[in-house]
Amino acid sequence: MIIEKIKLHDDPNVILTAYIQTPSEEMKATMIKPGMLILPGGGYQFCSDREAEVIALCYLKEGYQCFILNYSLNEKSKYPQPLIDSEMALRLIRKNKDKWYLDPGKIAVIGFSAGAHLATMLATSGKERPNALIVGYPAYFPIPEINYDYPLPVVDELTPDTFIFHTYSDSFVPVRNALYLANGLDEHKIPFEIHVFRDGGHGLSLGNNLVLDEFEDPMIRHYARWFVLSVEWLNRVLSPFNQ
Amino acid sequence: MIIEKIKLHDDPNVILTAYIQTPSEEMKATMIKPGMLILPGGGYQFCSDREAEVIALCYLKEGYQCFILNYSLNEKSKYPQPLIDSEMALRLIRKNKDKWYLDPGKIAVIGFSAGAHLATMLATSGKERPNALIVGYPAYFPIPEINYDYPLPVVDELTPDTFIFHTYSDSFVPVRNALYLANGLDEHKIPFEIHVFRDGGHGLSLGNNLVLDEFEDPMIRHYARWFVLSVEWLNRVLSPFNQ
Amino acid sequence: MIIEKIKLHDDPNVILTAYIQTPSEEMKATMIKPGMLILPGGGYQFCSDREAEVIALCYLKEGYQCFILNYSLNEKSKYPQPLIDSEMALRLIRKNKDKWYLDPGKIAVIGFSAGAHLATMLATSGKERPNALIVGYPAYFPIPEINYDYPLPVVDELTPDTFIFHTYSDSFVPVRNALYLANGLDEHKIPFEIHVFRDGGHGLSLGNNLVLDEFEDPMIRHYARWFVLSVEWLNRVLSPFNQ
Amino acid sequence: MIIEKIKLHDDPNVILTAYIQTPSEEMKATMIKPGMLILPGGGYQFCSDREAEVIALCYLKEGYQCFILNYSLNEKSKYPQPLIDSEMALRLIRKNKDKWYLDPGKIAVIGFSAGAHLATMLATSGKERPNALIVGYPAYFPIPEINYDYPLPVVDELTPDTFIFHTYSDSFVPVRNALYLANGLDEHKIPFEIHVFRDGGHGLSLGNNLVLDEFEDPMIRHYARWFVLSVEWLNRVLSPFNQ
Repeated sequence: MIIEKIKLHDDPNVILTAYIQTPSEEMKATMIKPGMLILPGGGYQFCSDREAEVIALCYLKEGYQCFILNYSLNEKSKYPQPLIDSEMALRLIRKNKDKWYLDPGKIAVIGFSAGAHLATMLATSGKERPNALIVGYPAYFPIPEINYDYPLPVVDELTPDTFIFHTYSDSFVPVRNALYLANGLDEHKIPFEIHVFRDGGHGLSLGNNLVLDEFEDPMIRHYARWFVLSVEWLNRVLSPFNQ
Repeated sequence: MIIEKIKLHDDPNVILTAYIQTPSEEMKATMIKPGMLILPGGGYQFCSDREAEVIALCYLKEGYQCFILNYSLNEKSKYPQPLIDSEMALRLIRKNKDKWYLDPGKIAVIGFSAGAHLATMLATSGKERPNALIVGYPAYFPIPEINYDYPLPVVDELTPDTFIFHTYSDSFVPVRNALYLANGLDEHKIPFEIHVFRDGGHGLSLGNNLVLDEFEDPMIRHYARWFVLSVEWLNRVLSPFNQ
Repeated sequence: MIIEKIKLHDDPNVILTAYIQTPSEEMKATMIKPGMLILPGGGYQFCSDREAEVIALCYLKEGYQCFILNYSLNEKSKYPQPLIDSEMALRLIRKNKDKWYLDPGKIAVIGFSAGAHLATMLATSGKERPNALIVGYPAYFPIPEINYDYPLPVVDELTPDTFIFHTYSDSFVPVRNALYLANGLDEHKIPFEIHVFRDGGHGLSLGNNLVLDEFEDPMIRHYARWFVLSVEWLNRVLSPFNQ
Repeated sequence: MIIEKIKLHDDPNVILTAYIQTPSEEMKATMIKPGMLILPGGGYQFCSDREAEVIALCYLKEGYQCFILNYSLNEKSKYPQPLIDSEMALRLIRKNKDKWYLDPGKIAVIGFSAGAHLATMLATSGKERPNALIVGYPAYFPIPEINYDYPLPVVDELTPDTFIFHTYSDSFVPVRNALYLANGLDEHKIPFEIHVFRDGGHGLSLGNNLVLDEFEDPMIRHYARWFVLSVEWLNRVLSPFNQ
């Protein structure tokens, strides 16, 4: 595996980190791999480690080349800058398909919270679009407590297949954010999955012992099923290894 | 275990079948059990075997006393008759709590398709309400092809915790039926889970080799996760054995 | 479903309880079902409820017609009486194949502890043999503390495919009992599975909230995987529904 | 994450590759991590890619710092050279505990086939011992077809907790290799797990779509459960994050 950090433009904090598995002649089926672009959450104020490399490791294990984007934050997060960052990242990923052993038609994006907002902006209005979208507890509507106020993404016909997960008990980013996207996808006949888990609150990431102090609650393990569900869904939507 | 068939009223086809596990002193934690009332689907034209005893066996294994209701069908399915059947069933179950080793405050109802419509009517407007509601691919809106046209259930404040599952690819009963209920629950602040799976179509029941000829498709196994998800959810909502 | 209790011979305590699912034209693949004969444990002093109906419910859910045998106990447990009981039970099950919608070539037997001893006696030396054998924490060697001393089963060429599970930490019936059988099967080239789990002790049955007071320990959930493993194994060994 | 390649001694092919996750203040519980040393198989003739980085990615996801050892092969594989390689690797890993954010008392080793032979030599006779041992289809006994003939490892009192997996249908390295180790561990009262799966043959690695062309066979999915079982077992044996 090779790890590469790439500055996308003038802002030195906007960085794409690539985790690239080298192909092996012993595993012909995976010489060319699908890709996963990861957009961590953090209210456009920071990019949380809890939704970055630990997520990359999950999809690397599933055979994806992974990319974490540290996008424009705080005063620099005024739109369309974060969207431009993500478009640049996605374009760069596809352009480097040979160097990174990638199928450019099988690039998914996953975002969490504010990162899910950005992922949805990219997937619904980007000049460059992913082939599949995964959003975890997406923050679309304003959150007055933290002056969070960003453009509302609107599903269009080019929006790719989408997978949504959320918890009902999320009081910080209510479940209606997830339902808003599901309703929009349904209206535009974009195939989607939505998995709303009853308990857990906001920002649980993987819901396991690596990212949470409290993870033995059976309802956290229940929530943690989102990851396996997402992999099964990706297997159908991207057919990552022509399976 | 004892199996009992009970005629609920004059219509000889309206029958409640009870599957009652006898308590054992060796298993103190389960001397008193939760209950599951099962309403099979079939467009109010029949009650499908694919959503009856096979479902009862699943929840029996999880420690539930199970009850299958064959409700009023066809010309007798004019409302409120099916609702009355289900109210009578639920009332009878709670009344027999001692004979059937039941906690009357832990009675869930599960319905499929038209049975999910009936289950939702019971849970949102019944004079007797279940303590938890599970609906599989619920058919709320009219289906002109089969002259299916029944009252639309409307969530109220007394509606219990709800678990919804559906497939996006269901062309017979579109996913907007499931979203309709999720949106209503969200508006009334009733905690819910919704699990929409991308593939599979209508009426998959358990999605396994017992009810389907084609079940090795990984997406059917994906869909089949609804059952385990429902059990985990029930464990929190009902705390069936004070766990 | 029909539940039938059958006295096997003069001893009124030797009873076979049959749990028979009625076939449905809606589920053609399961009109004819495999069978599971269950031999609970209890040191030949009693038949434990914790390894009886709760086990039957598990395999019923998987589509098996289930049979619990209360075999000869205490002073009546002198061999070969229990073996004769189990031969009679197996013969009766196969004889009633039409009445009970059974494939007589797909009858497995599962036993626990002393019941696993009996199941192994039946599978290795019975005049009537099951088509597959499952043994949970089998008690082959004498246990002086309880005057437990029964004939040691010896694998022969007619012994069917076998699935063994045990916990290493079982101090009452040590793991060498399980290894004894595995070694014997290997020598006779009988295909087998063995799953020894590190923790848990003796007599855990399903290892879930229905049979244990303490089940949230992750190592108990780990142990509890034996059931799913057994079902997957049975699917190959018996091809219960020609899958 | 940082990837580092370290030459262990004169032989330029003996290389330790370290995959090191950088700690994050956001995830206090995992600032210090357990380690996994991976010994791929290949009959001491090569180190298979199918049992190297793909395995590292699995345990990285579970929070382990991972290390792949390319040990001495072919004419250089005469004992004790491979054992010395692995001792050097293990010593180096523990020595670098600060640099690599490691708990030196929580270093497991996993080996496959010939790599499992080496892992067992290390765990039963090494001057430096791992804290836990995992062996997949270990090749202890000679294999005349490929002139494979190496010292037989013998369990001693210092051997750590061990987890064994194998398939019964392995005709290249028969299951008696796995039973040999299990019997030895039992005699020395070393806690162990053994999981023998019926079907699949030799060298299946993870048993998934990344390493196999044929993986949809339900029995391969059955076999593939070894990985989750190993993680659950490690959680108890190493308590990697004091859980």
